[in-house]
Amino acid sequence: MLTVGVGVLGGGVVGGTLIRRLLEDGDAIAQKAGLRLEVRRIAVRSLDKARPFDAPPGILTDNAHEVVDDPSVELVVEVMGGLDPAGDLVLRSLDAGKPVVTANKELVAARGLELVARAEQRGVSLLFEASVGGGIPIIRPLSESLAGEQLKRVMGIVNGTTNYILTKMLEDGADYEEALAEAQVLGFAESDPTADVSGADAAAKAAILASLAFGTWVAGDSVFREGIEGLHPADFRFASDLGYVPKLLAIAEDTPAGVLVRVHPTLVPLDHPLASVRGANNAIFLEGPAVGELLFAGPGAGGDPTATAVLGDVIDAARELLAHSQVAPRIRFAPGRVLAFEEAVTKWYLRLEVEDAPGVLASIAGAFGEHGVSIASVWQDGRGDEATLLIVTHDAREAELGRARKALDELAAVRQVASVIRVQSDAP
Amino acid sequence: MLTVGVGVLGGGVVGGTLIRRLLEDGDAIAQKAGLRLEVRRIAVRSLDKARPFDAPPGILTDNAHEVVDDPSVELVVEVMGGLDPAGDLVLRSLDAGKPVVTANKELVAARGLELVARAEQRGVSLLFEASVGGGIPIIRPLSESLAGEQLKRVMGIVNGTTNYILTKMLEDGADYEEALAEAQVLGFAESDPTADVSGADAAAKAAILASLAFGTWVAGDSVFREGIEGLHPADFRFASDLGYVPKLLAIAEDTPAGVLVRVHPTLVPLDHPLASVRGANNAIFLEGPAVGELLFAGPGAGGDPTATAVLGDVIDAARELLAHSQVAPRIRFAPGRVLAFEEAVTKWYLRLEVEDAPGVLASIAGAFGEHGVSIASVWQDGRGDEATLLIVTHDAREAELGRARKALDELAAVRQVASVIRVQSDAP
Repeated sequence: MLTVGVGVLGGGVVGGTLIRRLLEDGDAIAQKAGLRLEVRRIAVRSLDKARPFDAPPGILTDNAHEVVDDPSVELVVEVMGGLDPAGDLVLRSLDAGKPVVTANKELVAARGLELVARAEQRGVSLLFEASVGGGIPIIRPLSESLAGEQLKRVMGIVNGTTNYILTKMLEDGADYEEALAEAQVLGFAESDPTADVSGADAAAKAAILASLAFGTWVAGDSVFREGIEGLHPADFRFASDLGYVPKLLAIAEDTPAGVLVRVHPTLVPLDHPLASVRGANNAIFLEGPAVGELLFAGPGAGGDPTATAVLGDVIDAARELLAHSQVAPRIRFAPGRVLAFEEAVTKWYLRLEVEDAPGVLASIAGAFGEHGVSIASVWQDGRGDEATLLIVTHDAREAELGRARKALDELAAVRQVASVIRVQSDAP
Repeated sequence: MLTVGVGVLGGGVVGGTLIRRLLEDGDAIAQKAGLRLEVRRIAVRSLDKARPFDAPPGILTDNAHEVVDDPSVELVVEVMGGLDPAGDLVLRSLDAGKPVVTANKELVAARGLELVARAEQRGVSLLFEASVGGGIPIIRPLSESLAGEQLKRVMGIVNGTTNYILTKMLEDGADYEEALAEAQVLGFAESDPTADVSGADAAAKAAILASLAFGTWVAGDSVFREGIEGLHPADFRFASDLGYVPKLLAIAEDTPAGVLVRVHPTLVPLDHPLASVRGANNAIFLEGPAVGELLFAGPGAGGDPTATAVLGDVIDAARELLAHSQVAPRIRFAPGRVLAFEEAVTKWYLRLEVEDAPGVLASIAGAFGEHGVSIASVWQDGRGDEATLLIVTHDAREAELGRARKALDELAAVRQVASVIRVQSDAP
């Protein structure tokens, strides 16, 4: 049977799981895939650490270049993460004519344009199914199955940590700190949770999804993002009464004026398929004129699901290598117009602490109206000093809503704008 | 820009939509895919019929061989359906070194083993994403993204017509004939609905899913199937009270003893992701030891979604053609052990019309116990002459349940076994 020599950069959770499966399930993979994958060299940070696999003697190294440059390594898997030195190692592998499989969303979101172009130039594969959605196949469906579709929108729950926290806040009435602490104890959140809770991780994935869905390169750092740190338990209850669930959504839209990509807490209608995605699961929802609405859901992280996605890519790249094919690129990005976040159109939910007096609603409605924002519904909770006003607006541009919000701050009748959360909208 | 000449066999709903998009969206496809697809020849049954596309003069023919044999046709799309002459035309195309894209589930389920082997032998692609799930990408995720996963189970709602009818019966309390008639008026069911309501269409798709998921060839005619014609509105109400929704499920399981594939009405727990798939939508649920649970959902039929799936395959096959690659097969089927349906393990729901007298339950429980089936729950509805007993069993082998059911027929206390429906079970 034909054999492909594999080099792995990184022996962490995903790398360790992948290597264990390559070593232990080799026969099953060979039977199903029709080729044999042989781990020839593995780069790890520390040679002394215990690993979940029994590597044959001599194949571990703490020098990643030894993996890339090893002539017996025909295909490189990059699961070390981070921008440096991962980026240069990927380029070096491609330059040596070695296909690369990576799970590194940060790298793809930052340097995908350059890496994809280099892979095309060298005629080898660069595959990154595991960079978004863990074990959920989404990169391949977007770049291949839907290559003929002019997708209009991609919306996703693409960060399991924050979805776990939001699910706890919704179902147990926990506040943000409690839910985060529990997620950390259970291993769903890291000790420094910033990358997850700030929306940075989701923004990198949103950039990758947008680039693939629309064929227009969107860099990760051009994505607007707002995290979940400011969400208050009270808004989970009120939102629920109004028929919504708070989710951290990655939203990418192709509008006539350009591509718009953002990540922020969003109130999702209870009957939307994304509303029922619980715990650390991920889901991606696609809309196109011909294909209609598609949903992909599953475990968004974890060593086993992510290693499964990496393994699918490795088998695919190995097949192409064995076919001695000059690879026709399946992924290509064109430069395009990426819109500023202020152009986004959305609805808003606002929780206002107000004076319970005649004329208050008129002054608030006036402030919205002045800035071209119209109110869809108002609901008062409590009376007197405890009076709270819940407002949901109609669709409006982000810039207009920002100005309306400022005007509210200046109204004497508004004691505090306690919460502002965007609401999922079917615009544009 | 590189161009590939496309020949299309069939100008019906899917073919017509595909051709219109190839003719009208050529520039958008070229921009996204990096290659140009040119329709060179189209075979239709009647040259006189009006079509949803403006074909350039002279490219229509009513002789399918003219398409396959045309030297300017480099890639063949088969969307004519049926076994003959589609099967021989596909073989003839492959033999001529022309990649084939087909949407024909009947053909793939009947002759997939032979067609896939021939494609491998000729070194060209045979792709059939559109054969299951309409616009939902499922073939490619199964055969590529999950190539390294030892999937254990695939369950799907893969027939939109029956799911539409079942949704109507559930939500409107309609009986089967009413719901079918409405589906026919709205175009969700054909005037002869047999292939859909009997489960034959779903069985072909189940065979394809099983063959891809487990790498073991399962022929369509080896799949057990039971249709939805016998379902009664009363059971929708009772099932709902017990926490279930009736769905026509395609179920494929890889057990230690072999592969088991079946299609039958199934009571699905209300909190299962498949329970909430409404109307003509389809959904496929996958389970594997590493990847966990994955759900793919979307429109399961219709010209536009299905043409999108065909188009994705066409672009993929065209890329490989342009790369002049001898194709390394991505799909391969091994012979394997396909189990008889009697080996299936499931729970059962039974609705019995019984005498309302002491000792009745004991005699019924005895009949189950004698055949090794244990009862999970019993619920009595009504008294006296109207007494109805609803029974849900624990997991048992199909053969045992069959014998228990026969024993019930012979009990004097049982006036009628009014309904028997299988219940979704997490076995094996």
